[in-house]
Amino acid sequence: MQAYPLQESTLPDRNLRIVLASRPVGPPSPDNFRIEQAPVPSPGEGQVLLKILYLSLDPYMRGRMSAAKSYAAPVEIGQVMEGGTVAEVLESRHPGYSPGDLVLSHSGWQTHALSDGAGLRKLDPAQAPVTTALGVLGMPGFTAYAGLLTIGQPKPGETVVVAAASGPVGATVGQIAKIKGARAVGIAGGPEKCALVRDAFGFDAVIDHRSPTFAEELRAACPDGIDVYFENVGGKVWEAVFPLLNPFARIPVCGLIAQYNATGPFEGPDRLPVLMRDVLTKSLTIRGFIQREFQAQRPAFYREMAQWIAEGRVRYKEDIVLGLENAPEAFIGLLEGRNFGKLIVQIA
Amino acid sequence: MQAYPLQESTLPDRNLRIVLASRPVGPPSPDNFRIEQAPVPSPGEGQVLLKILYLSLDPYMRGRMSAAKSYAAPVEIGQVMEGGTVAEVLESRHPGYSPGDLVLSHSGWQTHALSDGAGLRKLDPAQAPVTTALGVLGMPGFTAYAGLLTIGQPKPGETVVVAAASGPVGATVGQIAKIKGARAVGIAGGPEKCALVRDAFGFDAVIDHRSPTFAEELRAACPDGIDVYFENVGGKVWEAVFPLLNPFARIPVCGLIAQYNATGPFEGPDRLPVLMRDVLTKSLTIRGFIQREFQAQRPAFYREMAQWIAEGRVRYKEDIVLGLENAPEAFIGLLEGRNFGKLIVQIA
Repeated sequence: MQAYPLQESTLPDRNLRIVLASRPVGPPSPDNFRIEQAPVPSPGEGQVLLKILYLSLDPYMRGRMSAAKSYAAPVEIGQVMEGGTVAEVLESRHPGYSPGDLVLSHSGWQTHALSDGAGLRKLDPAQAPVTTALGVLGMPGFTAYAGLLTIGQPKPGETVVVAAASGPVGATVGQIAKIKGARAVGIAGGPEKCALVRDAFGFDAVIDHRSPTFAEELRAACPDGIDVYFENVGGKVWEAVFPLLNPFARIPVCGLIAQYNATGPFEGPDRLPVLMRDVLTKSLTIRGFIQREFQAQRPAFYREMAQWIAEGRVRYKEDIVLGLENAPEAFIGLLEGRNFGKLIVQIA
Repeated sequence: MQAYPLQESTLPDRNLRIVLASRPVGPPSPDNFRIEQAPVPSPGEGQVLLKILYLSLDPYMRGRMSAAKSYAAPVEIGQVMEGGTVAEVLESRHPGYSPGDLVLSHSGWQTHALSDGAGLRKLDPAQAPVTTALGVLGMPGFTAYAGLLTIGQPKPGETVVVAAASGPVGATVGQIAKIKGARAVGIAGGPEKCALVRDAFGFDAVIDHRSPTFAEELRAACPDGIDVYFENVGGKVWEAVFPLLNPFARIPVCGLIAQYNATGPFEGPDRLPVLMRDVLTKSLTIRGFIQREFQAQRPAFYREMAQWIAEGRVRYKEDIVLGLENAPEAFIGLLEGRNFGKLIVQIA
C-alpha cells in the first residue's frame, strides 16, 4: 500500500476537462458546466499528445451549447466544450511533429488532448506571441478581415461602424477600415473600453452604448450616414444603426451576441416589415457568414495581417485569465461584456 | 363665333393626363388620382412630341405615390403619375427622330409628352411586339434577369422559388432558372394563374397562396429546401419560405407588394431577431436591388432574352386594358393581384 503515493507521482498529470453538463435556457450559469478528471490518453500510431497552454473563449461557443440547428453541430451533453487552443506537443507518433513543437489546435476546454494532425498548424513564437494565433492572427482576426473586405468592401471616405470595438473582431475591423481609407466608428461599453478603442486602436470616433443618449451620439458621429455596419452584436446597437444606413450599405453579419441568451418569442411591434422595406428602398446587402467559407483568403490574411502588426497599423489587446477551472466564469462574463480585449485562458 | 367649332376640329387632340391628387393611406383609391386636360405641347428645338400608345402599370408606382424616402423621388401632388410608355413620334425637332418612329419612353400616365431624347430607345416592331419593351424585354424582364443571375446565382439542381409567378417578373425568373438548370417553384393566386405558371411557363411546381395549406404545400414542393428566393411580394409568402431556406441561400429583393399598402407599426411578435439569427446561422444573403444599378448588363440581357423568346424558352403573357381613364382602377387591381400577366394600358 505504501507504494501507491510514490507510483502516483510518476504518473503523468491527470487530464482536466470541462464538459457541457446541461443546456442553458437564457444566460449560461456555472452549473451548465462540469469539471472532470480523466487519465491522460496515450497517442496511437500517427497521433500526438498535446498539452494545452492557452484556450480561446469566444461568443460563438454560446451557440454550441444549444441544440438549435446552426452552421455547426452542437456540443453534446457530457462532451468536452469546444474551443481553439494553443498547445505543446508532449509525445509524438506522427512524423510531422516532435515533442516541444507549439501548435494551434481545436482541442477544447481541457488540459490534454490527442490529435492525428488534422487541423493543426505549427506556430513560431519568434514570429509572433503564440496567443495571437487565437486572436488577431487567428479566427477573430480572420473573421474581421474576410468579412470586412469580402462583404463590407469599405471604400475611401466611407463610414464603417462596428460594435464590441474593444474586442478582437471589432478592434480589427476598425483598424482594417482605417487602412482602407474609411472612417471607423466604434461602439463599446464603458469609458475604459472606449478609451482603448479611441487611443490604442485609433478609431475616428467611439460611442459608449451605455450612454442614455447612445442613438443620438451615434448619429452625430456618422454625419454622412453608415456605409458598412459590421454586425457582431445585434440588439439595440442594430436598432440605432439601422436608420443611419446609406443606400447600398453592406452589413456582414458574423455574430449577434446581444441575443444569444434570448429565449423568444420577442415582444412586438414586428420590425421585420420595416427591415425588408429598407432592404428594398436602400438596396441594402445583409450577409451572414462564417470565416470558414473564405479559407482561400487565409494566406493573404496571414501575410497582410503580420505586416500590419509589424508596422504598428493593427494593434491588439489580450485579457488573460489563469486556470482552466475559471473558464466557465470567464465565458459567462464574456457574454456580458466583462472581458477587456481578446479573452484567453492560460492553462498550463 | 361660328368659326370656333370649325377651328376646334383642326386643333390637335388635347393632352389627357392623370395626376396624383392625394397620397394614399393604405390601399390607393380612385380619388387619389385626377384626370386632367391640357393643350398638347409643341416641341421646342431639340425636342420631339410623343403620342403615347401603351402605358406600363407596375407595383413600384405605389412607392412613388408616398412621400416616404426611397431610391426614387416621389411623384408630387398635382404631378403626372410616372410610368414607362411606348410612344410614336408625332413631330420632331430632334435630329435623331422622325415622325412615325416608335420609342420606349418614360412619359407617364398621359396621352402626349415632350422629350429631348434622353432615355428614349427606338423600337423595331419587326423584331418583337412593341409592348414587350414594357415587359419581358423591358424593365420587368431585366429586373428578373439581373436580380436572378447577379444576386440569386442559381446553380443546376438548386431550387428557386418566386411569387407572383404569373406576373412579368416572376414568370421570367422561373423560366431563366429553368434555363440555368435549376428547379423552378412558383407561387400564384388562384387556379387560372397557377395553370398558366405550370402549363405555359413550365415551372416544375406551382402553389396557390390562397390555399389554406399553402405553407405545407410549399414545403412539399421543395423537398431539398430553397436555395434562391426571389422576393417580390413579402408578407405570408416570405413567412412560408423563410423556414425552408438552405444554408447559403440567396434572396434578391426587388419588391414587397404585399406590404406596400401597410401602414404600421406592425403587430408583434418581433420577427427581426429570428431573421437575423437565421441570417447568421445559415449564412444567408439578403440583397435589395433596383435594376438600374445593373445597367452594364443591358446589352447581354437584350441579346439573351430575345434569343430565349425566339427559341420559345421564355414565354410571356400580357393583360391589356383599354383607355387611359381606366388606368387608376387597373393599377388598384394590380396591387390586389387582379391582373393576369403583364398589365398594360392601351392609350391611343
